[in-house]
Amino acid sequence: MSKDQIKIFCPATIANISCGFDVLGLALGTVGDEMVIRKMAQPGIKISSITGQDLPMETERNVAGVAGMAMLAALKYTNGFEIEITKKIKPGSGIGSSAASAAGAVWGINQLLGTPCSEHQLVEFAMEGEKLASGSAHADNVAPAIYGGITLVRSSNPLDVVRINPPSQLYATVVHPHIEIKTSDSRKILKTTISLADGIRQWGNLGALVAGLFQEDYALISRSLEDHIIEPIRSILIPGFEDIKSGAIAAGALGCGISGSGPSIFALSKGKDTANNVAKAMSGVLDKIELNHDAYVSEINTKGFRILS
Amino acid sequence: MSKDQIKIFCPATIANISCGFDVLGLALGTVGDEMVIRKMAQPGIKISSITGQDLPMETERNVAGVAGMAMLAALKYTNGFEIEITKKIKPGSGIGSSAASAAGAVWGINQLLGTPCSEHQLVEFAMEGEKLASGSAHADNVAPAIYGGITLVRSSNPLDVVRINPPSQLYATVVHPHIEIKTSDSRKILKTTISLADGIRQWGNLGALVAGLFQEDYALISRSLEDHIIEPIRSILIPGFEDIKSGAIAAGALGCGISGSGPSIFALSKGKDTANNVAKAMSGVLDKIELNHDAYVSEINTKGFRILS
Repeated sequence: MSKDQIKIFCPATIANISCGFDVLGLALGTVGDEMVIRKMAQPGIKISSITGQDLPMETERNVAGVAGMAMLAALKYTNGFEIEITKKIKPGSGIGSSAASAAGAVWGINQLLGTPCSEHQLVEFAMEGEKLASGSAHADNVAPAIYGGITLVRSSNPLDVVRINPPSQLYATVVHPHIEIKTSDSRKILKTTISLADGIRQWGNLGALVAGLFQEDYALISRSLEDHIIEPIRSILIPGFEDIKSGAIAAGALGCGISGSGPSIFALSKGKDTANNVAKAMSGVLDKIELNHDAYVSEINTKGFRILS
Repeated sequence: MSKDQIKIFCPATIANISCGFDVLGLALGTVGDEMVIRKMAQPGIKISSITGQDLPMETERNVAGVAGMAMLAALKYTNGFEIEITKKIKPGSGIGSSAASAAGAVWGINQLLGTPCSEHQLVEFAMEGEKLASGSAHADNVAPAIYGGITLVRSSNPLDVVRINPPSQLYATVVHPHIEIKTSDSRKILKTTISLADGIRQWGNLGALVAGLFQEDYALISRSLEDHIIEPIRSILIPGFEDIKSGAIAAGALGCGISGSGPSIFALSKGKDTANNVAKAMSGVLDKIELNHDAYVSEINTKGFRILS
């Protein structure tokens, strides 16, 4: 049991699921980073290598470093950990790159220490990493990464996370167009007020979406995957968004929206075959406008992180 | 089977359940009107008696009459029905007095005709009665009356109602202070815009409340029963509201808020004993400020209407 080293899979995540802006996220199964975490005698966190992306190695400038340090401080742990990160999730893609690293560090350390911390605590530590990445300690991506499945963040402060088991046939398709949208920019264009009527529509949809997830009612999930507040504003930053979305729906998707703050676009489908068809349709639109992109199809990852070795 | 007359119980309902403003309602079991509906040879709806309240008897000015006529027109039914109403729910109390009558008429007629109409259709007919009563064809009260249990109205137009089974130990307490608040007035004081931050808080709470209902997680239900948008504005119309609410919570209620557009105040509790204690606490505050009121304790009515004879 007392391993000195662990290699883990760190899932990508979709946050801001349509009507669940700022509260609803899910973990992906087939898209993610890898991380090796190793006990070391010296105190603190040492980021010893980052492969695949050019990111800061200094502990206090690295999300995994900051999250890990928050955990060690809370545990009053006097030794430390060395971390090697293999990035496959591109930073700025909108599928939780920083969350995978921040949450991965604390999840992995927790495993090496014999799981002294609850998932709730791990989310709180990982949020410190998110604070470094985006300026706000949000849990939208770290919560689904750590809890697995679908998570609803009822409140960030105090933290209150509700885990929802995904319907068994729910699949996600994600396309990542290779353009850059800064999270801070994509937050800046949002209005700070909304109409009460739009608010009612949004919470009606979110309540129904949660009910649809519990009842495994795919038609209800589909009807509820609407966002009349954020999507109309943010989607103007994503070339081809309307065509990609209508292509996804025409190919059978239950719904489609912006992942996180973009530019990635997600669709949810019933069944893997449909999710593959949806990927083709979404890719097709991006090919037509000659926008390089990645496309992924994944089941919803009910476990979150997992140990590879 | 082919009865010519039916006597039914018409449940009172709580709408606007805290964070579920305009979407979430529930049916009460022990508070309601009675209605006798009888086939008649002449076409149309005849309101032959109203006991307990002074309300218009003319078909086109009576909510049961209007709802019933909408149903007969849709069915192209050429004979008619006579309706006797015994009002126990006071109009203007905020627990669905008009909904009980409008929905009662169409539910009862549906029974006498061998249930040709779905619950969805019955809600649509009953909404015509609500339109007469309040100027808008809302489903907040008629939906829980007809479906029973807890209902979420995802959308009124097109109508989309989600039925949620109530947790088995959930009880409602309602106090009705004898003051008059017109629905139209209580709508007028609402702001037409809200902050995005308040909106996010509201839909986070509603999503969590729905999850709590499915998971029978009373602590989560309790944490989610918040309304930072409507309640702070409307509660100023209800004398003693803050004390009544804090009294209810101190007596063990999971949450407390304004029923419909007031002046009734509801609390939800786990278990009947707690609900009774909560009723005492709420009544106590109203007694102290010498405000006449009724107080009710009820299980959540999972059936909605029921046949008495």
